[in-house]
Parts: sequence; C-alpha cells; structure tokens
Amino acid sequence: MKLVIAIVQDKDANRLRSEFVKAGIGATRLSTTGGFLKSGNTTYMIGIDDQRVQEVLDLIHKTSRTRQQFMTPPVNIDAQMDSTSGYPVEVQVGGATVFVLPIEQFHQF
Amino acid sequence: MKLVIAIVQDKDANRLRSEFVKAGIGATRLSTTGGFLKSGNTTYMIGIDDQRVQEVLDLIHKTSRTRQQFMTPPVNIDAQMDSTSGYPVEVQVGGATVFVLPIEQFHQF
Amino acid sequence: MKLVIAIVQDKDANRLRSEFVKAGIGATRLSTTGGFLKSGNTTYMIGIDDQRVQEVLDLIHKTSRTRQQFMTPPVNIDAQMDSTSGYPVEVQVGGATVFVLPIEQFHQF
Ligand code: NI
Ligand code: NI
Ligand code: NI
Repeated sequence: MKLVIAIVQDKDANRLRSEFVKAGIGATRLSTTGGFLKSGNTTYMIGIDDQRVQEVLDLIHKTSRTRQQFMTPPVNIDAQMDSTSGYPVEVQVGGATVFVLPIEQFHQF
Repeated sequence: MKLVIAIVQDKDANRLRSEFVKAGIGATRLSTTGGFLKSGNTTYMIGIDDQRVQEVLDLIHKTSRTRQQFMTPPVNIDAQMDSTSGYPVEVQVGGATVFVLPIEQFHQF
Repeated sequence: MKLVIAIVQDKDANRLRSEFVKAGIGATRLSTTGGFLKSGNTTYMIGIDDQRVQEVLDLIHKTSRTRQQFMTPPVNIDAQMDSTSGYPVEVQVGGATVFVLPIEQFHQF
C-alpha cells in the first residue's frame, strides 16, 4: 500500500477524477493553491495497492496537460521596480507533481 | 513519531475533534471532498508519538459511524444511458480511511 | 528527495511564501484550521532535494513568530460550567509544526 499525493491544475482535476472513478480508485480532493501563477490547483490523495501505483501514475500523466498562458508577474513590494513590472509574459503552466509515499499502516473503519 | 492522516465524514468531524481535544492531541484540519457520494469529508493530520498511535486509531474508529444514505448516481456524460440512471439508490456511507506514515524529522519552532 | 509538510500561522504564511519564491522553492498551499485557538493556519507541502531540507527548515523557523494573544476558551457543552468559563486568557500562539517525510517516488509530468 502506498499513499500517492498528486498536485494537478484545476483545469485537469475533473477529468482526472473521472478517470479515477472509471478505474474504481478512491481519491480524496484537497483545495490548494500555489506555484508561480498562483492559479488554482487541486491535490488528490490516493491510497493504492503497490501493484496499482503505476496505473495511478499513468492516469495522472495522461490527464495532466501543459499549456501556454499569459500572466502578469506579481508586484513584490520588497523589490525594486523595473521596466518589466506589470507586463504579461507567456509561461508554460499545467503538468502535475506527484509524490509516492510509503505507509506503515492503512485502516478503513 | 508518526504522521496520521485520517479522512472522516463531515458529520463525524466535530465529535472527533472534541475527542482529540479531550486527549490533548493536536490535529490540523483540511477541507477535502471526494469519494463516491462527493459528500463533504474532512482530513485531519496528527503528529503523534509511536506509543500513542493506537490510541489515535481507537478514537477515530469509535467516532466514525457508518450510515445508510440515498444518493442519485452522477450522470456520466461519457457513459451510455441505461434504465437505472437518475434513480436514487441506498448506499453505505461514513467510516474513515486512515494512513499512518513514517516521518524522518519532526520540528516545532 | 523529501516531502516537507509545514503548518504555520496564517499571519506568517505570506512572508514564508515570499521566502520560498526568493529561494526558488515550489510550495503548494493548503487551507487548514486547527489547534487550540482554532485560528486559521496554512499548510505548505514542499518537495525538496535532500541537501536543501535544512534550508527549508531554516526559512520556516525564521519566518514563524510566536506571539501572545488573548482568547476566550471555547465552551464545552459536555463540561461542567466553572468560574473560569467565558473569560479571555493570554496564550502563546504562532510557531510552526514541520514534518519531513521520506518519499519513494517523485514525478513531474
Ligand atoms: Ni468498525
Ligand atoms: Ni525558535
Ligand atoms: Ni509527459
């Protein structure tokens, strides 16, 4: 048994949940924010048998799309203003970050 | 020291918190959703000495009730319609899912 | 690679995020509540190379301030009323709780 923690973009979260449902995999969803764009992201926690870890990773990989997006860099109140402040730049967003954690005990009551 | 992650139904969450308070156990609460019913659930993170892990498990077990509940299965836009779509069915909800994780370092600053 | 889970007070959370950004450390933020005061707190999840774990701990430590605060103890409906109920008391709040977890796999898709 492993605990998989997957941080995905909000835009991919519902499709991933559908994939989990189709595969009969229970996933708990956490509201999270973070990353460079401060765009919303979603964290899933999945408890899964060792032999299905790769299947979970494959579902996450195929569901997590990278895409180009314009953003306005946040104004840092501590920083020197410079000529680039406030202008939107194109960045790559999306993808997923995944941790597979060992667990010592797993219980369902 | 272990990290206990407990996912419980919202209806059980406050009673469990009271049990933790009575036992002097600090628990951090995360807003989460998920599972078949998409009913709200709550995740607690508890850092606890090895010798108190069983006590924490017992508190979660005694506080987490299973109950019967009617639900209307979600309509899956990808799926073939069939005659059972849209009718409420009785399912068992409740219970708790618990992970006990090893930790390498624990700090309180 | 380690997974650092840091629970900090809301009041310290933005300064800590700035420190992470400055250091080029990606952190995912979870909305959490808990602790004696039920004051808001924030949980960060950080995936970090082993050799930078101490740097992350140092950033959390220097950013997490303890402070004195008045609180009114919650009224426990199960408890006997006594003369101290309802009066504000001064307590120390703040600080941070940090777990460093081993991980078996780390992926960025
Ligand atoms: Ni039971
Ligand atoms: Ni200190
Ligand atoms: Ni890829």
